[in-house]
Amino acid sequence: MIRVGIVGYGNVAAGVVKALALVSDMKLVAVFTRRDPKIVSLQEGNAPILHIDTAKDMKNDIDVMLLCGGSATDLPEQAPYFAKMFNTVDSYDNHAKIPEYMAEIDKAASKTTAIVSVGWDPGLFSMMRVLFESILPDGKNYTFWGEGVSQGHSDALRRIDGVLHAVQYTVPIEDSINEVRSGKCPSLTTAQKHKRICYVALKPDVNKEEIEKTIKCMPHYFQDYDTTVHFVEINELFENHSKMPHGGLVMHSGNTGNNNHVTEFSLKLESNPEFTGSVMVAYARAAYRLSKEKNYGAKTVFDVPLSYLSQKDRNLLIKELL
Amino acid sequence: MIRVGIVGYGNVAAGVVKALALVSDMKLVAVFTRRDPKIVSLQEGNAPILHIDTAKDMKNDIDVMLLCGGSATDLPEQAPYFAKMFNTVDSYDNHAKIPEYMAEIDKAASKTTAIVSVGWDPGLFSMMRVLFESILPDGKNYTFWGEGVSQGHSDALRRIDGVLHAVQYTVPIEDSINEVRSGKCPSLTTAQKHKRICYVALKPDVNKEEIEKTIKCMPHYFQDYDTTVHFVEINELFENHSKMPHGGLVMHSGNTGNNNHVTEFSLKLESNPEFTGSVMVAYARAAYRLSKEKNYGAKTVFDVPLSYLSQKDRNLLIKELL
Repeated sequence: MIRVGIVGYGNVAAGVVKALALVSDMKLVAVFTRRDPKIVSLQEGNAPILHIDTAKDMKNDIDVMLLCGGSATDLPEQAPYFAKMFNTVDSYDNHAKIPEYMAEIDKAASKTTAIVSVGWDPGLFSMMRVLFESILPDGKNYTFWGEGVSQGHSDALRRIDGVLHAVQYTVPIEDSINEVRSGKCPSLTTAQKHKRICYVALKPDVNKEEIEKTIKCMPHYFQDYDTTVHFVEINELFENHSKMPHGGLVMHSGNTGNNNHVTEFSLKLESNPEFTGSVMVAYARAAYRLSKEKNYGAKTVFDVPLSYLSQKDRNLLIKELL
Repeated sequence: MIRVGIVGYGNVAAGVVKALALVSDMKLVAVFTRRDPKIVSLQEGNAPILHIDTAKDMKNDIDVMLLCGGSATDLPEQAPYFAKMFNTVDSYDNHAKIPEYMAEIDKAASKTTAIVSVGWDPGLFSMMRVLFESILPDGKNYTFWGEGVSQGHSDALRRIDGVLHAVQYTVPIEDSINEVRSGKCPSLTTAQKHKRICYVALKPDVNKEEIEKTIKCMPHYFQDYDTTVHFVEINELFENHSKMPHGGLVMHSGNTGNNNHVTEFSLKLESNPEFTGSVMVAYARAAYRLSKEKNYGAKTVFDVPLSYLSQKDRNLLIKELL
């Protein structure tokens, strides 16, 4: 049994707990929190909830630590700290800063294996971008996100004066997807690939038209996009828009000789954090196996053979799935 | 420069030559044939064509040998022979016999790296089956083939008395795909997933109705399937049905908690052999790199980290594509 710990208990951590319940080779040892453990309770499953400061005393009890904190401030601090003591897996998703983040962790992980930026983007989508362009170098990658809730854009709506609560869906534009599918290799900006649909509940006595204008003119977030604003009651927002679906697709259109090939990878997820947690659990298995081989340091999804992710042994994979 | 040789010159080998023309880190050294080299000429590119018996004298001139012979008789004989002397990549596609095939090659490859069964199925599709079920163990994989030409079924048509020439397309059934996409996890037989469309040119004075009946009642090949037969002139067959398009998709529908997730990987290929050749070239790069690390023996796509496939170095991949 691979003994797993979780650092930070939020939506992704709850997803990890659910994913662990579906595998027979791993066991959740403890959940570590910065909060008072007494006020934290698990949505599902039962494992001790301990203060984060006690983790350092459990080096011999935990094989892999799954770091479920946020990318903005938690992980840059926690990941190097934990990688010194434990094998780790995290879902750091600040694409631009991954190289410097990894460098810090690589220094810490001299006797551990730390797999960074695991999830679906960065993660599975990144893998497809590498796979596709390696096979078809005379071609072009396309990433579409959605349909799904964007946390950053929802937050931007909520910061507007007069907005009580809001949820923003990023929706890929079907015509753009079909243009890529046709083999045309178009040049597409992010705005040409996505539209934005906002569900907004207002405070009383607010000018709807002004708010709509503020949203649609917000630079970077909405200005360049086909943006639709639906004003709804706060109840409707909670009832119909509190799930966290997401998904998207990576496509590649490439040529060999006079022939075109289109490759496509897509996800349609009812729960973004549960799926991300499931990917992390598969990579926890890989981190454990790599560390057993003394293959230490900061790793990415590009470094891990697929057989390391599976509960089945290599011979069975070859027999059943090759 | 990685120095590459090709063994056997057919459609896949011609695809390899085209794929090599698109990369800057590999060079085609020679094509080896069992035929009289004087009667073989390359469709494209220029490289010496040599008799297969001369390959053994070129151990120091070639880094990776791409074995492009057929799976039925060529590869079982050639792959162990070449793996003794060279790093190899092949596209052996007899799924049921892969374990014993690999065992033979593994014995031969004590000082070389031999990546077997590279292509899209086995190959990329196999990778997706492992990836998907590792992440979502409470789920089910589905493989659909087509729309594309099936060589085996086309041959079965051509063996019927009275048939002059024929081409068979395997076509996935859209309703079955949509059932999986809906998250229902249906049980589907191969016949429930595919229909078969036949284009048949007849010899003179043959009874069409009888031939159609013979086709539709042919056990294993057509009997269980929704089969359509179009009788066409031989010219039309050559003009409209001599390309080799193919494709297909691997889907997985899996659950976490109370949520369903559908993952999907699809290929739409204008030329099956050119795409297969392109996959082999990317894995030739991996075979070369693994052998440099003395990671010898028979390998599969499950054993190779994705970074080994790319012309870009790992840091650049992390920066640009993670």
